[in-house]
Amino acid sequence: MSIYDERINQLRVLMRDKNIDAYIVCTQDFHSSEYVGDYFKAREYLSGFTGSAGTLVITYNKAALWTDGRYYLQAEEQLSVSNIELMKMGQKNVDTIEEYLTKSFDDRIKQSSDVGHNSYNDLEELHNHQDKFIIGFDGRTVNNNFVQHLKSKIKLNISIYADEDLVEAVWKDRPLLSAKPVWELDFGYTGRMREEKLETLREEMKKTDSDICILASLDDIAWLLNLRGNDIQYNPVFLSYMIIGMNHAVLYANEVIFSDEIKEKLELAQITIKSYNDIYMDITKIDSNKNVLVDYNKVNYRLVHLIPSKCKIQNIQSPIMRMKAVKNSIECDNIRKAHLKDGIAVTKFMYWLKMNIGKIKITELSAAKKLEELRANQEGYIGASFAPIMAYGKHGAIVHYSATEESNVKLEKKGFLLSDTGGHYLEGTTDITRTYVLGELKNEEKTAFTLVLRGNLNLASARFKYGVTGANLDILARQPLWENGLDYNHGTGHGVGYVLNVHEGPNCIGWQIKSDRTNNTVLEEGMVTSNEPGFYLTDEFGIRHENLILCKMLSETEYGKFMGFETLTLVPFDLEGIDKTLLSNKEIDWLNKYHQYVYKMLAPYFEGEELKWLQMTTKII
Amino acid sequence: MSIYDERINQLRVLMRDKNIDAYIVCTQDFHSSEYVGDYFKAREYLSGFTGSAGTLVITYNKAALWTDGRYYLQAEEQLSVSNIELMKMGQKNVDTIEEYLTKSFDDRIKQSSDVGHNSYNDLEELHNHQDKFIIGFDGRTVNNNFVQHLKSKIKLNISIYADEDLVEAVWKDRPLLSAKPVWELDFGYTGRMREEKLETLREEMKKTDSDICILASLDDIAWLLNLRGNDIQYNPVFLSYMIIGMNHAVLYANEVIFSDEIKEKLELAQITIKSYNDIYMDITKIDSNKNVLVDYNKVNYRLVHLIPSKCKIQNIQSPIMRMKAVKNSIECDNIRKAHLKDGIAVTKFMYWLKMNIGKIKITELSAAKKLEELRANQEGYIGASFAPIMAYGKHGAIVHYSATEESNVKLEKKGFLLSDTGGHYLEGTTDITRTYVLGELKNEEKTAFTLVLRGNLNLASARFKYGVTGANLDILARQPLWENGLDYNHGTGHGVGYVLNVHEGPNCIGWQIKSDRTNNTVLEEGMVTSNEPGFYLTDEFGIRHENLILCKMLSETEYGKFMGFETLTLVPFDLEGIDKTLLSNKEIDWLNKYHQYVYKMLAPYFEGEELKWLQMTTKII
Repeated sequence: MSIYDERINQLRVLMRDKNIDAYIVCTQDFHSSEYVGDYFKAREYLSGFTGSAGTLVITYNKAALWTDGRYYLQAEEQLSVSNIELMKMGQKNVDTIEEYLTKSFDDRIKQSSDVGHNSYNDLEELHNHQDKFIIGFDGRTVNNNFVQHLKSKIKLNISIYADEDLVEAVWKDRPLLSAKPVWELDFGYTGRMREEKLETLREEMKKTDSDICILASLDDIAWLLNLRGNDIQYNPVFLSYMIIGMNHAVLYANEVIFSDEIKEKLELAQITIKSYNDIYMDITKIDSNKNVLVDYNKVNYRLVHLIPSKCKIQNIQSPIMRMKAVKNSIECDNIRKAHLKDGIAVTKFMYWLKMNIGKIKITELSAAKKLEELRANQEGYIGASFAPIMAYGKHGAIVHYSATEESNVKLEKKGFLLSDTGGHYLEGTTDITRTYVLGELKNEEKTAFTLVLRGNLNLASARFKYGVTGANLDILARQPLWENGLDYNHGTGHGVGYVLNVHEGPNCIGWQIKSDRTNNTVLEEGMVTSNEPGFYLTDEFGIRHENLILCKMLSETEYGKFMGFETLTLVPFDLEGIDKTLLSNKEIDWLNKYHQYVYKMLAPYFEGEELKWLQMTTKII
Repeated sequence: MSIYDERINQLRVLMRDKNIDAYIVCTQDFHSSEYVGDYFKAREYLSGFTGSAGTLVITYNKAALWTDGRYYLQAEEQLSVSNIELMKMGQKNVDTIEEYLTKSFDDRIKQSSDVGHNSYNDLEELHNHQDKFIIGFDGRTVNNNFVQHLKSKIKLNISIYADEDLVEAVWKDRPLLSAKPVWELDFGYTGRMREEKLETLREEMKKTDSDICILASLDDIAWLLNLRGNDIQYNPVFLSYMIIGMNHAVLYANEVIFSDEIKEKLELAQITIKSYNDIYMDITKIDSNKNVLVDYNKVNYRLVHLIPSKCKIQNIQSPIMRMKAVKNSIECDNIRKAHLKDGIAVTKFMYWLKMNIGKIKITELSAAKKLEELRANQEGYIGASFAPIMAYGKHGAIVHYSATEESNVKLEKKGFLLSDTGGHYLEGTTDITRTYVLGELKNEEKTAFTLVLRGNLNLASARFKYGVTGANLDILARQPLWENGLDYNHGTGHGVGYVLNVHEGPNCIGWQIKSDRTNNTVLEEGMVTSNEPGFYLTDEFGIRHENLILCKMLSETEYGKFMGFETLTLVPFDLEGIDKTLLSNKEIDWLNKYHQYVYKMLAPYFEGEELKWLQMTTKII
């Protein structure tokens, strides 16, 4: 028996103690963070599966793990040592978690009936519930929708036990919760004092008649307080919650992470620091005559359910989402500086790559290391904003590819290198994809490169009326591909935080109306969004061209306010990939103007051969 | 005192009898029809205002009428003889109906308080309700949303009295309900038997666990039964309701409108005919254990509220909306024939116009008459599908302009004639707008003509993935205008019925997400939608280019199903309006291909000078 089966059996003992029929272990932390710290890797501890997405379900006699197409192979291998069944999400005839649980409970009912009335009574006694099944999970690791979904899809009599993390007792050497020091982002970077932000938040609360606002999103809290941390990889945030009232607020976090200076400043802003876990007690003490603003998509299930039932709940999008998405003018000026630094680093990487390919040994990992070094040379560089994607050849077709020692390959003087990377600078966060031509290309590669580029240029040059959403604009990026029966299976753009999460709502660009209402978000002046159409031919190659674009008001006429985008990213598109005959005159103009601007901005930082190369690389076509 | 004030005073007597504090008279019939018969013109009878949109509100001491910008002038004039106040909807500082009623009720409370406690008691006795206000209206002329809106916006204690049409007793010489003969549309036109349609409907009902379906939309019923009538101007439908069960259905209508043959056929399909008004009694007798499918947007408030409260209601979009929107292959073949006939008529009109402008006296009305004659020459022509818009010069900028004897002007040999007209043929319904160049144009006119045309061509040539909605596509039509800070203040496209309403849901094209979910409708193969971008410069000119487009599946690749449009309308765009330098090569190609196709289709029906002219008019540019 593998250690994973042993660990699961230990958990089953606890399940029986508490009459829990099925226990679900999710991948999330308590804040729906994109990345999670080691403390939160309970699913990995129990199953051995290390992927970034997956859900483990344990019943008395079985265990199964759901994951998506990115992880089929990895999960197959990692689960092979245990009795955990792999459930390939999205494949036909694979049960959902709800279907699996329904069948499992149905089987139990049948078995009980089969073995006669007496035995049924035993079971009944054992569980102390008549055909009622208890599903357990740590309510801090899921949101309300998860639970509603379970309840609506499982047509049996079920109840939920979400008050306890059973893994805690099983996992003896569990890592501690991260508690890295918090640092302050100065006014020169944030452009707004925390007092001012709190005041704006309270005005938003008043608009919805709310007395109290609960925050659990780490980037919401970091933005509001002008503080940054280091508890989540790639996201400079710190583990915390907040309860904000009209005159006073409480920040729940490990006190050791704050310097005395920061503590004093928080006190001045009428913010008290209490222990990270205290919120679970304090939330139960909210006056029942209060109106509580809480975004069910952002605040975990257990917190939501601890709010006194007499409180009036305003379940609406956290006002901070929109507040932090709309960058102020100081942030915008900074972001331009960050993109200049990033543009220098990435363009120098492009030069290094073009000069050395076929001459020295370059691998996916060494290329990523080189780019990281070039970024680190820039003043104010903090670190990578997400796990770098440096994908050569057919690896480029794997949308979430991240090179490992095992997968790492040497770059040859042919085909594409798809490089999707980003950095945090004090002046803002970048996210850029370039597809570099390393040598000869097939015709279909050049065609696809050009079609994807057309989508990028058409979205970048869009002019639209105020009120437009990402769902209205998406077709501009996809039309060149759709005209040719091609497509990419991801959104066209996501919002980007300011020294925060590189994936930030609510703004996004995508054609399918999402249930979480985010692509109904009106694009406001000051929002930064990615523009990243792509094309992927499985086992052959992948192409993506990504710039960040800043939404701006361009003119107001009697027909309305008209908006457009400023492209922030300052790195040439690889001209060697372009089939000019496929571009319209308007597209050629736009590309030339972009390259002229990139040259103008970068040239002061280049000299000699490198400058000559830059000139060639941004030439008029 | 005008007759209108007298009529309103008569109504106030009834209001006092029934303790109704405010009575609302709407413009709708009992079926939310776009046009209403004379019987339903209660608002016109009481106010003298003849516009197609307006709501009259009567309190004990005041009366006010709300209408929109199209009717400000007309309403001002028509209301000048009475004491009815004009409320210009959409203008700043103009109260909504709800605000008006709130203030009116507030005043009553204040007055009562001012005159002392005794008087307040008198009022209380008079109304037999303590500060509770009763709002009355004919519940058959509004839908549930109207009532919900009233209740949510008026923050006072109100109740609704919707069971009676008070106007009935006041309006002595009220016209009778229309009762025109019903006729059958043969299988060769409909492509599906009514029995088959009923079966499909019942399958859709089963999917939502519904036992009974209530229908009140006249086009839904006409489509389902393959019957047409003549009770509503421009819409070949007949006054009726239906209650449909799993094995049997009841059609509520005036029996005299059915021939014996049709009655027999309905009987064969297990459909019983009962009196039009009987539904209001029968609906109360529905078994309380039944699940009732009823679309609150389509079935009037009174009917909805007569459904026994124990019935489980499925308030979803009527399944027939989608069924009739997706035209079957026989309908599609017919529709192409209808467009050929319409194309011949409209193109001959264009020839007549071009040859005679400046030579004989042509007015807006005489031009409309000429076009109607040319359509009537076509076999199978039934009549106009909506009130023709023949708008010369600055009239073109009035989006809903319809020439009257008073407004009628003579066409000069300059500027634009905007002609938006359509016909019903046995083979289908058409809707076409052309903007004809009558002589010299200003540069801005030519530019605007070309920009609007670009929008039309770009939407017509769109290729898109299955699942796309009108909200995703709209920008293709608007982008050329938006790029120049211009726009049009209406949707880009509406669904079109088959010998039914020319405005038919649920498909439509528009960028703003509507609350009634219609532009979230996925465009399905077989849907016919209009493609009609425009531009309007107030007091100067108007431009609109409208074709009908049929959604089709074009290819299926590993990236999905790809869709596009077939343009159905067969009439040249006026080349004299085009500034070719503004068109892209792709747009020029598309225009040339369209004109070649129009020529090929129409040429067999033209000869001599007319044919030569057609050749010139559709020439390659």
